[in-house]
Amino acid sequence: MTPDRRYIITLSCPDRTGIVARIATFLAELGASITEAAYHADVEAGVFCTRQVVDAASVPCDIDELRTRFAPVAEELGGEHRISDTGVRKRAVLLVTRDQHCLHDLLGRVWAGELPVEITRVIGNHTSLEPVVTAHGVPFHHVPFPAPGDRFREQRKVTAFEEIRTLVEDPDADGGLPDAIVLARFMQILPAHLCEAWSGRAINIHHSFLPSFAGARPYHQAHRRGVKLIGATCHYATADLDAGPIIEQDVIRVDHGDTAEDMVRRGRDIERLVLARGLRWHLEDRVVVQGNRTVVFR
Amino acid sequence: MTPDRRYIITLSCPDRTGIVARIATFLAELGASITEAAYHADVEAGVFCTRQVVDAASVPCDIDELRTRFAPVAEELGGEHRISDTGVRKRAVLLVTRDQHCLHDLLGRVWAGELPVEITRVIGNHTSLEPVVTAHGVPFHHVPFPAPGDRFREQRKVTAFEEIRTLVEDPDADGGLPDAIVLARFMQILPAHLCEAWSGRAINIHHSFLPSFAGARPYHQAHRRGVKLIGATCHYATADLDAGPIIEQDVIRVDHGDTAEDMVRRGRDIERLVLARGLRWHLEDRVVVQGNRTVVFR
Amino acid sequence: MTPDRRYIITLSCPDRTGIVARIATFLAELGASITEAAYHADVEAGVFCTRQVVDAASVPCDIDELRTRFAPVAEELGGEHRISDTGVRKRAVLLVTRDQHCLHDLLGRVWAGELPVEITRVIGNHTSLEPVVTAHGVPFHHVPFPAPGDRFREQRKVTAFEEIRTLVEDPDADGGLPDAIVLARFMQILPAHLCEAWSGRAINIHHSFLPSFAGARPYHQAHRRGVKLIGATCHYATADLDAGPIIEQDVIRVDHGDTAEDMVRRGRDIERLVLARGLRWHLEDRVVVQGNRTVVFR
Amino acid sequence: MTPDRRYIITLSCPDRTGIVARIATFLAELGASITEAAYHADVEAGVFCTRQVVDAASVPCDIDELRTRFAPVAEELGGEHRISDTGVRKRAVLLVTRDQHCLHDLLGRVWAGELPVEITRVIGNHTSLEPVVTAHGVPFHHVPFPAPGDRFREQRKVTAFEEIRTLVEDPDADGGLPDAIVLARFMQILPAHLCEAWSGRAINIHHSFLPSFAGARPYHQAHRRGVKLIGATCHYATADLDAGPIIEQDVIRVDHGDTAEDMVRRGRDIERLVLARGLRWHLEDRVVVQGNRTVVFR
Repeated sequence: MTPDRRYIITLSCPDRTGIVARIATFLAELGASITEAAYHADVEAGVFCTRQVVDAASVPCDIDELRTRFAPVAEELGGEHRISDTGVRKRAVLLVTRDQHCLHDLLGRVWAGELPVEITRVIGNHTSLEPVVTAHGVPFHHVPFPAPGDRFREQRKVTAFEEIRTLVEDPDADGGLPDAIVLARFMQILPAHLCEAWSGRAINIHHSFLPSFAGARPYHQAHRRGVKLIGATCHYATADLDAGPIIEQDVIRVDHGDTAEDMVRRGRDIERLVLARGLRWHLEDRVVVQGNRTVVFR
Repeated sequence: MTPDRRYIITLSCPDRTGIVARIATFLAELGASITEAAYHADVEAGVFCTRQVVDAASVPCDIDELRTRFAPVAEELGGEHRISDTGVRKRAVLLVTRDQHCLHDLLGRVWAGELPVEITRVIGNHTSLEPVVTAHGVPFHHVPFPAPGDRFREQRKVTAFEEIRTLVEDPDADGGLPDAIVLARFMQILPAHLCEAWSGRAINIHHSFLPSFAGARPYHQAHRRGVKLIGATCHYATADLDAGPIIEQDVIRVDHGDTAEDMVRRGRDIERLVLARGLRWHLEDRVVVQGNRTVVFR
Repeated sequence: MTPDRRYIITLSCPDRTGIVARIATFLAELGASITEAAYHADVEAGVFCTRQVVDAASVPCDIDELRTRFAPVAEELGGEHRISDTGVRKRAVLLVTRDQHCLHDLLGRVWAGELPVEITRVIGNHTSLEPVVTAHGVPFHHVPFPAPGDRFREQRKVTAFEEIRTLVEDPDADGGLPDAIVLARFMQILPAHLCEAWSGRAINIHHSFLPSFAGARPYHQAHRRGVKLIGATCHYATADLDAGPIIEQDVIRVDHGDTAEDMVRRGRDIERLVLARGLRWHLEDRVVVQGNRTVVFR
Repeated sequence: MTPDRRYIITLSCPDRTGIVARIATFLAELGASITEAAYHADVEAGVFCTRQVVDAASVPCDIDELRTRFAPVAEELGGEHRISDTGVRKRAVLLVTRDQHCLHDLLGRVWAGELPVEITRVIGNHTSLEPVVTAHGVPFHHVPFPAPGDRFREQRKVTAFEEIRTLVEDPDADGGLPDAIVLARFMQILPAHLCEAWSGRAINIHHSFLPSFAGARPYHQAHRRGVKLIGATCHYATADLDAGPIIEQDVIRVDHGDTAEDMVRRGRDIERLVLARGLRWHLEDRVVVQGNRTVVFR
């Protein structure tokens, strides 16, 4: 069953009295039927944001016309906004290494129609995941990375990331950039200029409950510290490693019987879930970044 | 720190286009500053409901005038509504038996200022909890219930409930009825006519994850069935035992090592929490009953 | 990395003093290095059970000899026991319909080496899941079931189940029966004689927190009742529908905004996890059935 | 109902083959009926530990004789051990400031018989909690601390802690030290020499999911970072602030609508639970410290 077509309006603007009335009146006068509406005012920062979903069938004009008509409202409110159309399928590119659990989970969800996205390509720095990707009918691209001992390692990394950038940023596609670039346990640090270029689109899954255990081998860090819960964090990648705005987190209980290896295995379940939820919310335009925090309209 | 005074508007009405615009415009024209706003449309039932919180200081009239001005808006929308004032302290009466954990927890939360309510009296059918109640400066009333073997048991129960009714429904208090009548592990079945009279105010905590294990000794039922989680349910009491609208539920994990008695002990933690959360939401006008379900605007 | 080879001893017997000493002394005299040991005494039922894992490399004889030597100990204790060998890969057969989420999840886990099992075949009563199964290199068998209107429906169901039985019970394989027959959202009620024949091996995932909402369309039942958490239950299939011994359960939070369809979608995440965990524990000989309850040595 | 009297044996020793057999044989020969038994081998550290609970009525000698008889077994195994008697009530001293939620919760649990301990005294650096303490029949001692601006602050702190030490370490009581010194939101940093003197007995509740947000105002730190879960940690106090061995942790979900103040309020529920669970396990001799981690035999 295809869900009905919706237009999704998201807007952030300086907080003041009357914003809801202004938007709601605009939609009411248009005759638009609102199916979801959520608001958030950050009193401290003085910022207001909202997400409104309307039934496309109730809107008496096409989306371009809707955008044209809404523009002056947004301008009056002094904010940033976006109107998206669930009738236009979003596109994502996945970056992977050898770990297959997040990749396999996302491929399955897309196949089952659980995630509203087309995975246009998967880029891996090893070839081991190629079979599962192509079995799902998705193109796989191998971009090898230099080994630790390589004397031209830094230069070769730069080249590899340039190749990745070319594969991700498809000039033929509408807009050039995919809606999401997912680091599905990619294990390579994205260079700052790519974090910048893909700002708000590059989504990482880190295998700890951040800010605890940023960096390498977080489960081993967690084991050493003797924590009683382990977690995973889905966040936007920024130049500051593992410090970007958090979209979603969750944890599971461990105990003294769990070795670091058990944590690695058991943590996969929470990584899968947290990435899938975070990506879904991103794709459904539920996430608004405010500074280093996110508003997630669930 | 006393929180700022707020007016809380809740409204349920038939769903149609323009409701949000109508309310938001009303508030904007009044100059009211909205601090919280939540909406829910039950498409199936065709019912819309909303909860709006405004800063009392931003409203240029008193609450009676606000009620007068909002009445025609509500009438136009064809719904039921209520406007409450956080500056007026709510009142609750607690009914208890011998179990002290929920009682003690609520007394502590009220004392610490965590729950916005005054407990005006506690009614118990045993005297064992009188000391803790009076230590908190709350009047305790003992209403004995007949023992199982009593040959006039049914008649004596009727009398006992009449006495409870007299204690609960204080004609001198504003409105007669307290805002909440909390069955804090009361263990006696409320007669249908009291469920009716106290509809939407009588709040029960049942020690299972309903609808599983309604009725007596739910932890023993749970143990016998071998479930892996046990729970608690906070719901409005209705004439149908343990079948009223659910406000809140939660669970904790148990395993084969837990006897029924362990479940009784461990379940107390979840009963305490679930009752405290459910009661808080009720007192903050966050709960709207729709048929046998609730909308909880958290 | 292949985990080291282990022998797993599970034993249930009447409870009395000295059982642990008897088993531990046997293993100590053998020189066996115990890597995991768990015990449970059900005082009410007077039953003791234990699971002991020993490093195969520390045992100075092969598994047949170990079985021979342990037999008199078990006989002396008057119990049932089993010794299994993690060096022998277990086998599972999956039964499916159209829902792919549990199937896809299990295939991915097996492929990633997360589940210690070989899926020898998948049997479906529709063909829609054939491609994903064969993409994973697993044989798929289509056994069509009669449509609701079919006038020979009952007879045709009997025939279909006979065909399934033939596919499941492979006389050429060691022991005939696979270690697990997984109803991965199979949606057909297993006949009593198969529940009997596959007792302790047929594992079902039910999409509710049992005993609530047994039977058909549990999420719709849950939505109607207005519960605040939905769940899933992994249990052994018995002739009593949805009433077999529970291996694992879990829940997630829902709210008034979730329609029955949202619950169906969101529930998939918990079904996947609960089935994967229950199956893992079954395959690792962690589950001991005692009457209608299970002991799970995690 | 008083639970039956038990003797609890805990032992840590270098790991090797035959330990379980040695202990189990000792107990079997004594005729002791084991009601709980748990084992843990930390392979990496080469350390084994166990907790055995026996029915006191099944032991044919008194506890002194049991200690005498077990001593050579423990010596042979080369470990540390302790035998405690649930018939002897444990004692705890609580340190508090102004926050009453943890204090009130613990007092209620002790009163209801949920925690096997006598609270012998409460020491506060403010007098605001005196009434609730004395209402529970527990002596309250006020030890004022110097204000931030006090020019003799450091010296006065030293004096205050000396006074606390005198109150905690009661030379007339058996052993001098209480079984637990609970920092129930005490908010003062315990000096290193007291951490040392009370090693393994001083239990702190920190209001974050450590190691995230150690130090002051953790909820404000959490809010600033934009985490999606907040937590609490119960740990043994050590000279390293908020870095001692963790006994228990738990978390609850927050979202963008929660201000730092909301987190403070909501976090209290998790602080209460985590402290109560951690303290219970400590009092039941379920916690074994191994380096900077704990084994918790639940």
